[in-house]
Formats: sequence, structure tokens, C-alpha cells
Amino acid sequence: MNAFQDYYPDEVSHCYGCGRLNEHGLQIKSYWDGDETVCAYQPRPHHTAVPGYVYGGLIASLIDCHATGTAAAAAYRAQGREMDSDPPLRFLTASLHVDYLRPTPIDRPLELRGRVEEAKGRKVTVAVDLFAHGELCARGQVVAVQVPDEFMAQLLGK
Amino acid sequence: MNAFQDYYPDEVSHCYGCGRLNEHGLQIKSYWDGDETVCAYQPRPHHTAVPGYVYGGLIASLIDCHATGTAAAAAYRAQGREMDSDPPLRFLTASLHVDYLRPTPIDRPLELRGRVEEAKGRKVTVAVDLFAHGELCARGQVVAVQVPDEFMAQLLGK
Repeated sequence: MNAFQDYYPDEVSHCYGCGRLNEHGLQIKSYWDGDETVCAYQPRPHHTAVPGYVYGGLIASLIDCHATGTAAAAAYRAQGREMDSDPPLRFLTASLHVDYLRPTPIDRPLELRGRVEEAKGRKVTVAVDLFAHGELCARGQVVAVQVPDEFMAQLLGK
Repeated sequence: MNAFQDYYPDEVSHCYGCGRLNEHGLQIKSYWDGDETVCAYQPRPHHTAVPGYVYGGLIASLIDCHATGTAAAAAYRAQGREMDSDPPLRFLTASLHVDYLRPTPIDRPLELRGRVEEAKGRKVTVAVDLFAHGELCARGQVVAVQVPDEFMAQLLGK
């Protein structure tokens, strides 16, 4: 099964968090699970805040990219078409909020669950919960905005 | 001149964003500039969102660590002592908010400027502006909380 990020056009697949063509990046993968979206990520040993616990900036990064992926997937779904159909839809982050609820252990994969809170025109608000060992460790909210058409055309070299 | 992060005890210097002992990390350096704090960081070529522009998760990470550094430095200053004096003060992030105002070009060092908005007991709220080419590209707010004493003792192996 392909992840949302596998459908991003090559020209916009260099994101450090979610671009499959960024060999130094996190390369997260997001999928539908009913009306929610899911992503699992195993932090690397150097992704520490203090020894044993996950760096907050990594948590913010995962929430960010899982949310923009969720926004894109939801936009295709709202248009009743598959993610490999044209025109491609990509979202940028307008704002990101993360509440860190407890120290997040680094020894197991993190699970992220996203859901669309609001979709209004080109703006999609996504909530993301992040779990470790089944326990809610962080909660995020992202306002994602569809990449403006001219900027998208420029990025795609059209 | 030493940066705030150079004074962090070794045991809590492994943060991916600001730990001087994390060889894979960003190793940011923050300093006082009057009542504000400053940090410069040159994004690496792979820190892209889309080609030419900085990844939002990196921006969130820089804001996060510059803010917790600012909170620590301000706490020492409020106590009228140097950052190499005991007991050491370290801050964790309770919440992080970033507004992305415009795409941030990757070709020049980013400049971050922080200031304490509120300090109340162990909680310090820090605002951070992020500039590229002198232009304000992102605005962050971090609520930082001093690491609880027992947790700090545990981290320091005491």
C-alpha cells in the first residue's frame, strides 16, 4: 500500500520530514485508517532531548509533516479522486502548535494519529495526537494551506 | 564568548537541537544581546521544505531550543548569578507555537531573536522572531518550564 507521501510529485518530494527523495531526511509515511490518518516513526538514537527521551523538535517535525500529508489526502478525498490523479495537491504549514504533555520515551516507535478538524477553501486544520507505548505524549494542531497555484507551477517547472 | 548551551552540564547536553555533545545534532549557540537573545544558524542543504526553502520542522526546532536557552539564561540573570554557577537550571518545552509568515530562503544563515514575555515561578514564556535576509519569516512562542528538581537530579546521576 502506498503512503500519501509516495504520491507527491518528484519536484516536491525533497522535504526533510516527508520527502521520499531526501536521503538525509525522516521520510515519514502516512496512511488512512478510516477517517483518521496514521504514521509510525522510530526515532533514531541521536533524536534525544535528554537521554532516554525524544527531542521536542522531532515531535514537532513529525506532527507537521503528518498533518500536511493528512491535509493533502483529505483534499483529494473531498474531490473524490485518487492521490495519483492530476492536478497534484500539496500543502504548506501556516501555523504549528504542539503541547508536550509528558516526556516521550525514545525506545519504541512513535504513533501519530491525525484528523481533519476543519476544511475551508484551501485551508485545512489538522489535529494530531502522538503516542509512545500507547500513552498520549504530545498533541498538535496544524493549519495547512494549499500551495498557491503559481508557486506550485514554478516548483513543478511548468 | 561562551554560548548559553556551553554552560549546560554534560549530562543534559545531548539535545539534538542544542546539545554540544550531540555530534549528529544542530548544536545551536545562543547569546545575550542587551535584553534580547540571538542565535545564527546556517541550514544544511538537506534542510529543505521545497527546493530553495527551509524546512518548517527545522524552524520549529531552532525556535524551540533558542527559547529554552533564553529561558535558562533569563532565570540565571533573575537570580543574579552566572550560568556556570550551581545549581544548574535547565528548561523543557511545555508548548511551542510557530506562525510561518513566508517561505524562508535556505541560502543564508537564519537569525533568531528571543525575548522573555513573562516569567512566573518556574514557567518562562519566550517569543522568538526568525529572520532570513533581514526579513521576518517566522514567529514563535514557547512556554518553557524548569526541569523538575527530582528529574534533574536523576539526569545528573545524583
